[in-house]
Amino acid sequence: MSHNTFGHLFRVTTWGESHGAALGCVVDGCPPGLKLDEAFVQAFLDARKPGTSRFVTQRKEPDQVRILSGVFEDDRTDGQVTTGTPVSMMIENVDQRSKDYSEIRDRYRPGHADYAYDQKYGIRDYRGGGRSSARETAARVAAGAVARRVLGDDNQIRGAVVQIGPHAIDREAWDWDETTRNPFWCPDAAAAAKWEAFLDETRKAGSSAGAVVEVQASGVPAGWGAPVYGKLDAELAGAMMSINAAKGVEIGAGFAAAAFSGEQNADEMRMGNEGVRFLSNNNGGVAGGISTGQDVVVRIAIKPTSSILTMTQSVTRDGEEVDVRTKGRHDPCVGIRAVPVAEAMLACVLADAKLRHRGQMG
Amino acid sequence: MSHNTFGHLFRVTTWGESHGAALGCVVDGCPPGLKLDEAFVQAFLDARKPGTSRFVTQRKEPDQVRILSGVFEDDRTDGQVTTGTPVSMMIENVDQRSKDYSEIRDRYRPGHADYAYDQKYGIRDYRGGGRSSARETAARVAAGAVARRVLGDDNQIRGAVVQIGPHAIDREAWDWDETTRNPFWCPDAAAAAKWEAFLDETRKAGSSAGAVVEVQASGVPAGWGAPVYGKLDAELAGAMMSINAAKGVEIGAGFAAAAFSGEQNADEMRMGNEGVRFLSNNNGGVAGGISTGQDVVVRIAIKPTSSILTMTQSVTRDGEEVDVRTKGRHDPCVGIRAVPVAEAMLACVLADAKLRHRGQMG
Amino acid sequence: MSHNTFGHLFRVTTWGESHGAALGCVVDGCPPGLKLDEAFVQAFLDARKPGTSRFVTQRKEPDQVRILSGVFEDDRTDGQVTTGTPVSMMIENVDQRSKDYSEIRDRYRPGHADYAYDQKYGIRDYRGGGRSSARETAARVAAGAVARRVLGDDNQIRGAVVQIGPHAIDREAWDWDETTRNPFWCPDAAAAAKWEAFLDETRKAGSSAGAVVEVQASGVPAGWGAPVYGKLDAELAGAMMSINAAKGVEIGAGFAAAAFSGEQNADEMRMGNEGVRFLSNNNGGVAGGISTGQDVVVRIAIKPTSSILTMTQSVTRDGEEVDVRTKGRHDPCVGIRAVPVAEAMLACVLADAKLRHRGQMG
Amino acid sequence: MSHNTFGHLFRVTTWGESHGAALGCVVDGCPPGLKLDEAFVQAFLDARKPGTSRFVTQRKEPDQVRILSGVFEDDRTDGQVTTGTPVSMMIENVDQRSKDYSEIRDRYRPGHADYAYDQKYGIRDYRGGGRSSARETAARVAAGAVARRVLGDDNQIRGAVVQIGPHAIDREAWDWDETTRNPFWCPDAAAAAKWEAFLDETRKAGSSAGAVVEVQASGVPAGWGAPVYGKLDAELAGAMMSINAAKGVEIGAGFAAAAFSGEQNADEMRMGNEGVRFLSNNNGGVAGGISTGQDVVVRIAIKPTSSILTMTQSVTRDGEEVDVRTKGRHDPCVGIRAVPVAEAMLACVLADAKLRHRGQMG
Repeated sequence: MSHNTFGHLFRVTTWGESHGAALGCVVDGCPPGLKLDEAFVQAFLDARKPGTSRFVTQRKEPDQVRILSGVFEDDRTDGQVTTGTPVSMMIENVDQRSKDYSEIRDRYRPGHADYAYDQKYGIRDYRGGGRSSARETAARVAAGAVARRVLGDDNQIRGAVVQIGPHAIDREAWDWDETTRNPFWCPDAAAAAKWEAFLDETRKAGSSAGAVVEVQASGVPAGWGAPVYGKLDAELAGAMMSINAAKGVEIGAGFAAAAFSGEQNADEMRMGNEGVRFLSNNNGGVAGGISTGQDVVVRIAIKPTSSILTMTQSVTRDGEEVDVRTKGRHDPCVGIRAVPVAEAMLACVLADAKLRHRGQMG
Repeated sequence: MSHNTFGHLFRVTTWGESHGAALGCVVDGCPPGLKLDEAFVQAFLDARKPGTSRFVTQRKEPDQVRILSGVFEDDRTDGQVTTGTPVSMMIENVDQRSKDYSEIRDRYRPGHADYAYDQKYGIRDYRGGGRSSARETAARVAAGAVARRVLGDDNQIRGAVVQIGPHAIDREAWDWDETTRNPFWCPDAAAAAKWEAFLDETRKAGSSAGAVVEVQASGVPAGWGAPVYGKLDAELAGAMMSINAAKGVEIGAGFAAAAFSGEQNADEMRMGNEGVRFLSNNNGGVAGGISTGQDVVVRIAIKPTSSILTMTQSVTRDGEEVDVRTKGRHDPCVGIRAVPVAEAMLACVLADAKLRHRGQMG
Repeated sequence: MSHNTFGHLFRVTTWGESHGAALGCVVDGCPPGLKLDEAFVQAFLDARKPGTSRFVTQRKEPDQVRILSGVFEDDRTDGQVTTGTPVSMMIENVDQRSKDYSEIRDRYRPGHADYAYDQKYGIRDYRGGGRSSARETAARVAAGAVARRVLGDDNQIRGAVVQIGPHAIDREAWDWDETTRNPFWCPDAAAAAKWEAFLDETRKAGSSAGAVVEVQASGVPAGWGAPVYGKLDAELAGAMMSINAAKGVEIGAGFAAAAFSGEQNADEMRMGNEGVRFLSNNNGGVAGGISTGQDVVVRIAIKPTSSILTMTQSVTRDGEEVDVRTKGRHDPCVGIRAVPVAEAMLACVLADAKLRHRGQMG
Repeated sequence: MSHNTFGHLFRVTTWGESHGAALGCVVDGCPPGLKLDEAFVQAFLDARKPGTSRFVTQRKEPDQVRILSGVFEDDRTDGQVTTGTPVSMMIENVDQRSKDYSEIRDRYRPGHADYAYDQKYGIRDYRGGGRSSARETAARVAAGAVARRVLGDDNQIRGAVVQIGPHAIDREAWDWDETTRNPFWCPDAAAAAKWEAFLDETRKAGSSAGAVVEVQASGVPAGWGAPVYGKLDAELAGAMMSINAAKGVEIGAGFAAAAFSGEQNADEMRMGNEGVRFLSNNNGGVAGGISTGQDVVVRIAIKPTSSILTMTQSVTRDGEEVDVRTKGRHDPCVGIRAVPVAEAMLACVLADAKLRHRGQMG
């Protein structure tokens, strides 16, 4: 995780500002011969795209991806495939409206990166948050599509929102199909209804709400990851915490495990038809930093969008006290659009773990 | 975070098994001229040492550190100082009692890394958990002592246990001095009393308890860290999740932020005598991945010790169902001894962030 | 040096194939506030551009660079400056003529990477050599321009060709100004005249010639680089050997030093007006992997262009013996256009060394 | 190559000073199940050991290696084998005689790293050259032994000295068996005789001589390495240039290729009984940065030992002009003992390339 690059063998570098000409990524280390074309990547970008419901930003970005390198097609290949060289992908920014932001170039929006960037760099591209904008996550989603090809059909990676504001889902009611029927990736129909009312109220008040996102990977074989700083869960924690507005990450039972007894927490084992069978998954599919063959389960706490219409106390670049309110087009709950992003990060970390594992183990 | 190494400019590599000859670390990239001798490092190791109360493992390890390289002393230096070359430190294992573990060489202890290691490597040093043992964390603590020298006196790094089992502290009662008066690093005297009774019960039942550890760094200037995968909080999350038994990490308000409104979450700013003053610290000292000048605040969920005396269902290496119970000398609550370890990881991540920041910024 | 990325704090990732849509680079870790616009970068690209004399490839590529991110300009900045976030640059391929290469898709050109790529990846973009083409070096030159900004005006980086085929220059006749007066970057007018005749003959014979390139950096302060694998000369050797067709790298006296006595080789020291003065520079500005303050001097052996019109014995992908001759537009001596590339690599390695040095040393 | 670490999946970190307590290395990423015990490693260390003939330093170091971690043995393993966790190895310094160096603590020995270290760090362990001493290479040799296990019996790695002072071998007379019959690793009996006289003269004169070392690896399959900065030859160049006193590296024909025509340089291909057969190996087994299946051939220029008894002009730390002569026990030609070191570096780079290749390619 070196500034704008993450991964070891499957390496992702992203670039671009919210209101620059374009943004994109370079995916290096990808195995050759994997089917990859723009339509495949686009499908994942469309899932993250702004403007799809009234609960997300109304900025209209087509987020059309172009693959600029690393793929090849001739009459001997099965469509367009990767060649093993870097896959460069680019998304042009279209609907930028930079003037919206002119008034905040000298005012620090509380909760935003404005102040920290200025303190570090002495200069910042304040248009739409520049590099700190969640627009950067489009590049992650594009990279995640490549990662899914590396993982292949053996792995299924899925995500859901499990809490919005103070309203958590009923995990007993979990139905993956439900996540496609509401604009919240909510696996619990009753919770989705509650969230709709809650977010309408939030949105009308010019406020915002936090959320908890959960992503899961099934089909991960036992053995990926490595002691002790390259632990699979350590890599996941770093990757997830790098998502905009993330303030917490947990694996399996997570913080709940702190209240458990040793007996409650033990994931007991029995033999099943296809080998070892675990009686619970408090470990979230990772023990000692290495996958166990169970589903990998990660949750991410997403703080409320910092851009709110309510007046908040702040200061200017020159040290004057001011009150600010953030106009512009914002997600009332960024946690919703974080789902495809968290899925992408899970896919990238697992793809890297897969390649590293077979590097060491053959 | 490449297997057994972490950090970029301030880099820590650790090695060693629980019951091998020794364990240690190599700290590379350390600035020269910093005072460093064995006594200084030893003080931190003593804080983590086993056998100091009835609430931690009774294994007797002096954990005596030797500094093997990277320091120098002559009549022109102020005692022994670093030279800028790798600091290698070693701790010999003394009280190993390897025979304690002979019976679990073929039986997987639920919650432990046994099964995952065997699935990955096909072989494991099962004596005391081998590389997956928390004994490895002694090397982290030694490295953390060096990191504190890199940070210097401007930074104060402190830790506490804020929850054991289901019993959280009262944050209003927080008193740092209290952490030195009880064997739990508990900042709340009333909670410490409760924990004592709770853990005695737990210990006598042969069970174990989880915990939440909190570490804080004050004196961190605004500007450390970098977008977007090298975010300071992303580095912290990875580092903390690599600690044995960690299942969750949060920064600032963490998971609680998910339930906040945008207004509640905003860390409003006013001007104080020494520049910008924040009215709250929900961000935990990090915004957009860059430090804000506020205290850096990190919490880690530690699951209950997997080694319990209660019989649990498991399987053998050969696929037979068995019931296991883990004898040996174990911490009833590993969260307690995780405090100096989490402090060390915080120090190492910050030292690295400091060096990287001045590398880019001058 | 991880596949398509090099550098530690100043990190360069390149992407793109010879006949793909475009090629480019992402430069990460650049300090903020440095003047950087397309015109500045373009000047270096123009120096490397194909088609400038009859001694280089006749492919017509404008090599027009676009800066897509990492820069910003408003009324408070001194023109367009870096922001500290990744600088993404792109060059579109224009004059591709892919049909030229259709006949060699199944035939391995001796000396080229064709066979090795096919053996590794099982697939290759054979159009113009794909990723193995020297077109990739345009991206290095763009990155090198950014590196020069990081180094600032204190460092002067220059290059020359010192040998073409068997004809070496007379070092006594070295005149830097001369390098701009002939199409060979030759610092010796007499040698340039000889090379002109030699290369005309070579070109007409459909053959090609090797060369030795020398690059120098002045103004490098003592202290950059670090023991023992991060030695400045080790970084330089890796960086230079990664240039297409490079087969050797030497620092200072290089291979000649093998024949020296200890007395001949010693760079003796005296005191000068501005501190230590060396009486010779056999070390090439680096001792123990750390710069000494003398000029850094590196030479690179470039093999003859593998693409020649002479018929050579080869095999096909399917294992049939064939004779091949490489049509297309090629440099009779790739060493000539390697000069701006080697300069760029020298600038990038030094920029990285500068940032790492101040990271560790403050 | 991050300061004291090199490699990506097979990673080597070394530590230790010439006159410190000990030196050693940590080898991370090693596959499990490989036979590894101290006797195996010791054999390689013995080949590099000081004091074996009158042509190398007379310092008496047993260089006894201890393996401290990463290996395991029980009744189910085939002797002691690797476990996949870090292999830590240590060699204690025994024959230090630090007083020999007291008089040069303030005087810079020309050609040595003394001045550069002081300029960088402001402090140095001047005893025996501290970290810049070639004693560090013992740790490389130990790591190289592990690398050979990773490569297995398919690869043969061998080295020779091919030039001492101005006297090169006759390559037509090359006989590998000869390298074990003289104290110079010389494959040409006639050259060895000449060197003996030459070096006796050199030694008696208190002078020193340079050398060229050549290492070769056979059995490397086509496909290892990767474009474009992770080229196998780029990795080799960096690794070899990091060896003490190295001033040049070449692959295959190396600098001689600069004088070749395209026809002379082309490694033509025909079909042989076991696939493609090359008619020459000017490329040194690497094309486009990827191995071709031919022998990998690398040569390294080693400058004369800087420690000579002849008086040379120098300066002190305080800027006074002095004349120095270096007493102590030194190699008259460090190139000789560089052979096992260069072999070790070749083994390590290839082991890493092997693991990375199978990571990406499966």
